[in-house]
Amino acid sequence: AIVSAIARLLSEKQKGPLTGRHVLITSGPTHEPLDPVRYIANRSSGKQGHALARAALALGARVTLVSGPVNLPNIRGVNAVKVETAQEMLDAVLDALPADIALCAAAVADWRASAEAAQKLKKERGADVSLSLAQNPDILATIAIPGPQRPELVIGFAAETRNVVDHARAKRRAKGADWIVANDVSAATGIMGGDRTQVHLVTGAGVEDWPAMSKDEMAARLLARAAESLSSVRSAAE
Amino acid sequence: AIVSAIARLLSEKQKGPLTGRHVLITSGPTHEPLDPVRYIANRSSGKQGHALARAALALGARVTLVSGPVNLPNIRGVNAVKVETAQEMLDAVLDALPADIALCAAAVADWRASAEAAQKLKKERGADVSLSLAQNPDILATIAIPGPQRPELVIGFAAETRNVVDHARAKRRAKGADWIVANDVSAATGIMGGDRTQVHLVTGAGVEDWPAMSKDEMAARLLARAAESLSSVRSAAE
Repeated sequence: AIVSAIARLLSEKQKGPLTGRHVLITSGPTHEPLDPVRYIANRSSGKQGHALARAALALGARVTLVSGPVNLPNIRGVNAVKVETAQEMLDAVLDALPADIALCAAAVADWRASAEAAQKLKKERGADVSLSLAQNPDILATIAIPGPQRPELVIGFAAETRNVVDHARAKRRAKGADWIVANDVSAATGIMGGDRTQVHLVTGAGVEDWPAMSKDEMAARLLARAAESLSSVRSAAE
Repeated sequence: AIVSAIARLLSEKQKGPLTGRHVLITSGPTHEPLDPVRYIANRSSGKQGHALARAALALGARVTLVSGPVNLPNIRGVNAVKVETAQEMLDAVLDALPADIALCAAAVADWRASAEAAQKLKKERGADVSLSLAQNPDILATIAIPGPQRPELVIGFAAETRNVVDHARAKRRAKGADWIVANDVSAATGIMGGDRTQVHLVTGAGVEDWPAMSKDEMAARLLARAAESLSSVRSAAE
């Protein structure tokens, strides 16, 4: 009896606040081909998205990480899905649903070429060109559409270079997200590609200005908050 | 006397066919910013350019490697210059002259945004956009301009998806390069980003079809040919 009690205690201890939950994360950039050799991309190291995956795993979640092209090692225990374009990322995300929490940290390219050339475009000497771009699917807004498949908590990320909080509030409303994690990625901040970040958390209740910290610390803090939020929803329903 | 003879022999042995020569190599892609977070790029792992640098070093050359954004380790003994845009690459190349051999293996973006936005472009829902692109400086053609700074041997690279040899011949004439190393980078070949290649060497004397081999083997073979070519020029002048 003592042995089984200890075993139960140990197994309780291994359970985290997100045990039994599925956390879906997008990370990295997308690459939108213009022709077989050229593409448009957003700058993104994927460090923040991958930090979120590690943090969710540490809290006991089952984690799906849908990632564009990045140079980061796989995370043991995380279900990694590699994609290249925004359309492929959307398809992978929809395949991965249902999820309890969705964290859209990828820097998805807003546009793709209206028509990708099957052969390499040849340049003509001295000629400038005009590229026609079509808008990509909006992954965050698609996930956040109300319905039975919508995760309980949909969290978007906003990388801005000015009016950071204003843009984040507008983005939260426009996309139907629950929370927006916003940061200033102006070159002077060193956040883009770096290991540290300084974010503002925009929720329905207002704006929290978080201090500067590592991307790992931010991820741990955000996932802990997300886990609390889920359990309060569940407690209220009980 | 015996000791000094041995010392001379050893030092002779360490001399390679490119000892005393300066080899200038461009490698990798360039990234052309559209705004603080978006850019246009060419696909390029930089593996071929970096293999050329190792091969030139092994033959005794002093090597300058001007490289766009790649995820490859530095090469000990090579003077590495890191750049991002085509304009920066051109500036670094001109700074590195004079050189005996120039190998332009970088996949330089042909176009850049006509005007880079200082702030992140905001997308308007449902609106498609048209991007105005200006032609980038042509690094290979600039190096190959006749004059006292022109390297003795200027070698360009042509990554094509069809009519590989025809395009390479035309490129050789249009750019004023001595040799063009051409290959087929269609997805089916696996050359793009891979460790193997299969090239055609286009010179003034004609076209040689080289068999498939590793990028390292191709680099060693090409640099050995380049070294021979330099010494024959020098011998003819003597």
